[in-house]
Amino acid sequence: MRDALLELIGDEARVSVSPSVLDQHGSDFTHHRPHAPDVVVFPESTDEVAAVLRYANAERIPVVPYGAGSSLEGHTIPVRGGISLDLTRMDRVVDVRPQDLLAIAEAGVTRTALNAKTQPHGLFFPVDPGADATLGGMAATNASGTTSVRYGSTRANVLALEVVLADGTVVHTGSRARKTSAGYDLTSLFIGSEGTLGVITQVTVRLHGIAELAISARITFPDLEAACRTAVAIVGGGLTAARVELLDERTLRAINAYKETSYLEAPTLFVELTGAEAAVLGDLELVQLAAEGEGALTFDSERGTDAQLALWEARHHAAFALLAAFPDKARRTSDMCVPISELPGAIRHAQELMSANGLEFTVLAHAGDGNYHVGFAFDEDDPAQRAAVQTTNDALVEYALSVGGTCSGEHGIGLGKIGYLQREHGDLLPLMQGIKRQLDPNGILNPGKVLPPD
Amino acid sequence: MRDALLELIGDEARVSVSPSVLDQHGSDFTHHRPHAPDVVVFPESTDEVAAVLRYANAERIPVVPYGAGSSLEGHTIPVRGGISLDLTRMDRVVDVRPQDLLAIAEAGVTRTALNAKTQPHGLFFPVDPGADATLGGMAATNASGTTSVRYGSTRANVLALEVVLADGTVVHTGSRARKTSAGYDLTSLFIGSEGTLGVITQVTVRLHGIAELAISARITFPDLEAACRTAVAIVGGGLTAARVELLDERTLRAINAYKETSYLEAPTLFVELTGAEAAVLGDLELVQLAAEGEGALTFDSERGTDAQLALWEARHHAAFALLAAFPDKARRTSDMCVPISELPGAIRHAQELMSANGLEFTVLAHAGDGNYHVGFAFDEDDPAQRAAVQTTNDALVEYALSVGGTCSGEHGIGLGKIGYLQREHGDLLPLMQGIKRQLDPNGILNPGKVLPPD
Repeated sequence: MRDALLELIGDEARVSVSPSVLDQHGSDFTHHRPHAPDVVVFPESTDEVAAVLRYANAERIPVVPYGAGSSLEGHTIPVRGGISLDLTRMDRVVDVRPQDLLAIAEAGVTRTALNAKTQPHGLFFPVDPGADATLGGMAATNASGTTSVRYGSTRANVLALEVVLADGTVVHTGSRARKTSAGYDLTSLFIGSEGTLGVITQVTVRLHGIAELAISARITFPDLEAACRTAVAIVGGGLTAARVELLDERTLRAINAYKETSYLEAPTLFVELTGAEAAVLGDLELVQLAAEGEGALTFDSERGTDAQLALWEARHHAAFALLAAFPDKARRTSDMCVPISELPGAIRHAQELMSANGLEFTVLAHAGDGNYHVGFAFDEDDPAQRAAVQTTNDALVEYALSVGGTCSGEHGIGLGKIGYLQREHGDLLPLMQGIKRQLDPNGILNPGKVLPPD
Repeated sequence: MRDALLELIGDEARVSVSPSVLDQHGSDFTHHRPHAPDVVVFPESTDEVAAVLRYANAERIPVVPYGAGSSLEGHTIPVRGGISLDLTRMDRVVDVRPQDLLAIAEAGVTRTALNAKTQPHGLFFPVDPGADATLGGMAATNASGTTSVRYGSTRANVLALEVVLADGTVVHTGSRARKTSAGYDLTSLFIGSEGTLGVITQVTVRLHGIAELAISARITFPDLEAACRTAVAIVGGGLTAARVELLDERTLRAINAYKETSYLEAPTLFVELTGAEAAVLGDLELVQLAAEGEGALTFDSERGTDAQLALWEARHHAAFALLAAFPDKARRTSDMCVPISELPGAIRHAQELMSANGLEFTVLAHAGDGNYHVGFAFDEDDPAQRAAVQTTNDALVEYALSVGGTCSGEHGIGLGKIGYLQREHGDLLPLMQGIKRQLDPNGILNPGKVLPPD
């Protein structure tokens, strides 16, 4: 296989079977079991991607696209071996068109690399999943995150795609126009298909103006539900909120330990308001009123870049802080999303369930979207704890579905949630499987992900 | 056929072969040639829709969903006869959930009927295509319109769908959560599929808060390009614009004649700013600055409902005014969308082309989106004029594609644009046709629309 690929790529350094490279592309930092690919290919052009896929399709070899490797559901693990297609060398920002509020980038460009190019024009690409993911990976998984309450997920911010199909055909969806009604929406179909319907090689994204003013507020509450209700009020009021994030007291404790900070260890909302100065200042008052109405314990706001960065750094480092807080434990994160008014009840249910099952846990939520992550810390060598985590996770998903929510708010299905997808959308599976069969008849594209075996 | 359907529906009044009902469902107010269905069925439940589809699928009878009949691309014309499935009796607002910022409605609910239910909660469904379309129709065609510059198209405002498939199977996509990453995005696939992949029977839509203040500005310019550039500045600046509409001098002349108004007959931008008072007032100053920088001739703004309604009434009646202005002529409207910086050039090109070809025309644009409609008024009995209209329309689309735009910004493909879809997305047609075959193997769903024959 390596020889055949070398013939296509013509560069030894870009067709690797080195054990360390295989290992790196066979594992991620989640609980999913690693499985190495047989070879890692680093294409530098769409033509090379097409050549690899033509070959792989003819030979029935699995192909797993790989970007920053920051997926949380095992998307990049080549569970059936084959080729890991590492797109990080396709890292060219093809065009920034400030006059059209868009940019065109190859799949391997990271969001911070893109924003470095757009920032001088006063523009930015708004989706922020935390990790410095690649745009191809973000499109493939429909990444979202802290800013989605304002700007939507990746799907809402992509105008057009270049995609290489399983047989090596290159197609283009969408256009550079800000809207289109030209036929079925294949852009949205490829976005979130997790590498199972095609390999995204180029992305045309919307850019947004960088606001005149950003103010961040950190607000603590006596309980999580009061914090949730405040978040719902902020979103419902149509305020200029760009982020509405919720952290529980355990997460604050971990952040204090990790960052040597002294934040009050109480349920906390982090709110960012961005816009014209008058609008932001007016909305800050409304946020404070809403928070006081819910009995907020403290209300701190910061204006200007440095102080604000410190505040958000705490939030952004939550994931690392939590890893550090339970050094000897395995971690696993859930990703439910419920109608926003159901968030307080969902979090109360999660807390009661975790306590009843004797599990250590933390709660983080993109509260403005109703998307919450319950983090488990457990002893992986203890079968009883492993079983308790699984049972509890199942119950959390079941609860979210029972109130009209979804098993995955933003992390996708990948390896770990195929059963939950069946539970949530069993009626749609035949359609999804039909689309998969049509687009990838030989089943070479990221096999074992998203869908159960046919 | 009527007897079989009567057995399923059990109500003579809801299975009609009356000539006037057949005529009404066989024509629309566009240039597309009418063709009557064999029968019109008025289902009152999803079960009845499913029963009709099971029967039609078994008997290979075409089924064409019908809502308000306000489509502009011939979507509802049963070009191969069969059943016109009129969903207007499925007009129940199932649930308004202000606390979740969503509403659930049957397909036949119109947008104004929905907004009447949500308004007491201070909320509204934002998509406004002008016509009082049904939500099912708006979802099926991914309708957009004057407010899409702020709120996006219908697709961006739908969370979940109930869809009856060709064989009568009822499926549910999406959820009531504000975001989801659970499998392929079938919600987006059904939206804009124009009745060719399934019959949408229920829609769960996002609601938005009604703003504290709305101010409308009417700004006239020495030429269309200056008006366009001002629109681009407004959108690029991220202002609180809810509508940014452009009308040419000919359209203003028609409005004055139709409404007995005395607006200056010059290229005009209609801009609506909505939001918190401080934000709107601040942005109004910025709009005025931008307009003055482009040499605006006049700048009028209105605050408060009555004056504002008068202003927008002029815009909303543009379509009727244009019909009245050319009483003996046939009319046809194009629907291109280009990257916003290309709009001034596209409109200049259109003006030159129309003048060179000796055609009467008007220009209307959702300028904030780069979406423009060139209206032709012509003598349908004159083969030379008919040919000139066709040639000119082709050239307009070709121009839009040449600058990275699309052949349809919001009206869809329907009957009239299948050739343009082939021109724009020839590489995607095999995928679209494959999806169509999978979801509708007998080809009963709105045959002859969107896709060329296989």
